[in-house]
Amino acid sequence: MIYLDNSATTKPYPEALETFNIVSNQFFANPSSIHGLGGLSEEMLKRSRTQAAELLGVKPSEITFTSGGTEGNNLAIKGVALSYSQRGKHIITTEIEHAATYNAFKQLENAGFEVTYLPVNHKGRVNLEDLKKACRKDTILISIIHVNNEVGTVQPLQEIGEWLKEQRATLFHVDHVQGIGKVPLNLKEYGIDLCTISGHKFHGPKGTGLLFVRGGVSLSPLFSGGSQELNRRAGTENLPGIAAMVKALRINLETSKRHLDDLKCLKNKMIRSFETNDDLIIHTPAEFSAPHIINVTIKGIKAEVLVHALEEDDIYVSTKSACSSREGGASRVLLAMGIPEDEAAHAIRISLSLENTSDEIDRFLDIFNKKINELKSVMG
Amino acid sequence: MIYLDNSATTKPYPEALETFNIVSNQFFANPSSIHGLGGLSEEMLKRSRTQAAELLGVKPSEITFTSGGTEGNNLAIKGVALSYSQRGKHIITTEIEHAATYNAFKQLENAGFEVTYLPVNHKGRVNLEDLKKACRKDTILISIIHVNNEVGTVQPLQEIGEWLKEQRATLFHVDHVQGIGKVPLNLKEYGIDLCTISGHKFHGPKGTGLLFVRGGVSLSPLFSGGSQELNRRAGTENLPGIAAMVKALRINLETSKRHLDDLKCLKNKMIRSFETNDDLIIHTPAEFSAPHIINVTIKGIKAEVLVHALEEDDIYVSTKSACSSREGGASRVLLAMGIPEDEAAHAIRISLSLENTSDEIDRFLDIFNKKINELKSVMG
Repeated sequence: MIYLDNSATTKPYPEALETFNIVSNQFFANPSSIHGLGGLSEEMLKRSRTQAAELLGVKPSEITFTSGGTEGNNLAIKGVALSYSQRGKHIITTEIEHAATYNAFKQLENAGFEVTYLPVNHKGRVNLEDLKKACRKDTILISIIHVNNEVGTVQPLQEIGEWLKEQRATLFHVDHVQGIGKVPLNLKEYGIDLCTISGHKFHGPKGTGLLFVRGGVSLSPLFSGGSQELNRRAGTENLPGIAAMVKALRINLETSKRHLDDLKCLKNKMIRSFETNDDLIIHTPAEFSAPHIINVTIKGIKAEVLVHALEEDDIYVSTKSACSSREGGASRVLLAMGIPEDEAAHAIRISLSLENTSDEIDRFLDIFNKKINELKSVMG
Repeated sequence: MIYLDNSATTKPYPEALETFNIVSNQFFANPSSIHGLGGLSEEMLKRSRTQAAELLGVKPSEITFTSGGTEGNNLAIKGVALSYSQRGKHIITTEIEHAATYNAFKQLENAGFEVTYLPVNHKGRVNLEDLKKACRKDTILISIIHVNNEVGTVQPLQEIGEWLKEQRATLFHVDHVQGIGKVPLNLKEYGIDLCTISGHKFHGPKGTGLLFVRGGVSLSPLFSGGSQELNRRAGTENLPGIAAMVKALRINLETSKRHLDDLKCLKNKMIRSFETNDDLIIHTPAEFSAPHIINVTIKGIKAEVLVHALEEDDIYVSTKSACSSREGGASRVLLAMGIPEDEAAHAIRISLSLENTSDEIDRFLDIFNKKINELKSVMG
């Protein structure tokens, strides 16, 4: 199998699953129980939180464990909006967010908030000047995706963050789900107040994630109840999932340190091959893009047809994002980049992980080119 | 080890963990991915949903998978409140709910909803007449816990449900987290519109749960995003957790069919023993109570002291609910039952599972009585 749909989800590391099993059996007690078994679970939870914080360069009290990226984005966005609505009801995001962010903003818009959706250029990038113009005294939140999940464009978060530091009334949330382990992000230096990551995008278990919430930022919780997660997220902690996610995060960031350049080489190899084929339109920009996502339209070939043709050879790629792949029509992200509708409706996404090998990419390119030629001759 | 804190959490069944591992490795693709691997995951998700629905006697489309009981209660309560607020803003619950429900109502109260908290009698039961008086034309929701998590009282849900069927404007949510596998509940017959269960309370994995939502009931989602779970709960599905939870549900309900009477015997054995000791005040009512929870105060002995004394012999019980055990003070539930504050502040909860044995209970009673005598002589 050559699995190139890693932006949809990744295969869990065996080490993460091992941690899940050990914690499920040996630390099964509720961390809130006051007896000794509960104490052991509480200690394990504390260790996981401390390790996650160290890996991200933040404080343990700034980590809120969640059930994934969608929860993280919703908690950050709705939590800030509801908590700071007395200060203002204007919030800003971009036209190329993941559905979790985009639809959270739509829901808030229906609830009486005013939303500015920043446009992007043909590379999928927002412009700091547009943000400056949009920002007002009553702007309480700006939420931007670090690495776009469909095309891989990296946003100018450092510039934005540095400018935002001067705008004291506006909190800065970053959806870092696709960026973690692939494009470094300095939460402190960039002035980021909230940041979402998801376990299953870096070989951790599904149903896990975390939200960084800078000290002093207040959030209205989505889950009321017990006082877990410093009152930001009630509910018995998924300790096996949390410990396994933190294990995966550590392995992933260590692997990234050693092999991020290899990943860039794999992507460049694909891009160079694609560039020689006039039937291919590459939507992923050459600069300011992540090392693991390539978005491309093959002229005259429907994306679904190519996905299924590759599948015959045990190769897996996707059409747009998994979360919206079952909705018909052109990609909202590609349309926002000004890509014509027929091209935007037939793009495929190839997404790598740090685990993919050079041999896999050679074999993929070989079969990919063959399949395109076959399909073209069939369609004749 | 004699683990008697099963209302806080249970140890996962080995079979459920096995399912978790198999699905993590063999069905790791995103169910929303359109390729064949995604199709296998989608098929597994569908099978899990169908099996869960069959076990609960409902339709597959009425099952929404969640991250647990707290999410289920919050989604049901806030989801209905926000979705039906045009019809009315009056909502009803009881004074003895789990914190997830109680605090969700408090949050809605702060957001402009009017809440009636029904009182309970000294057995912890609500009265249908009180509910009838509280119900108005603008009452959109009533939420009641089936089995109270601290004392085990069972509410008259059938009576309530049958009366509510005539009140067409009011939706009926039941927190069934402590009841599942212990006290049967007929969702259809009782006219229940929404019902929460949590995986880790019946030997399933933590971070899993499901919410029954009767067809036709509309919910404003807590998580916006992709169209998963019929748009009721966005986010990549935790497929290993879902499949493992459904496995645990099946095993638990089958075990319950065979061994529920044994569980009742264990509880009765404990009650009979406790009744012979004049230092014990049993708060769990003799009738209308679940077969797995006993709440008791030992005169002159602090609950924490006894919990730690039992722990020396590898026996684990708890003080009130795990979710609120770290908050000081008397139990809100016991106070609502009219139990004096000093008694309510020093109750312990012994909670069984279908896995506990008669030998364990004999040994527990033996050590329990010894510890009480020791502590009493020390305190002198």
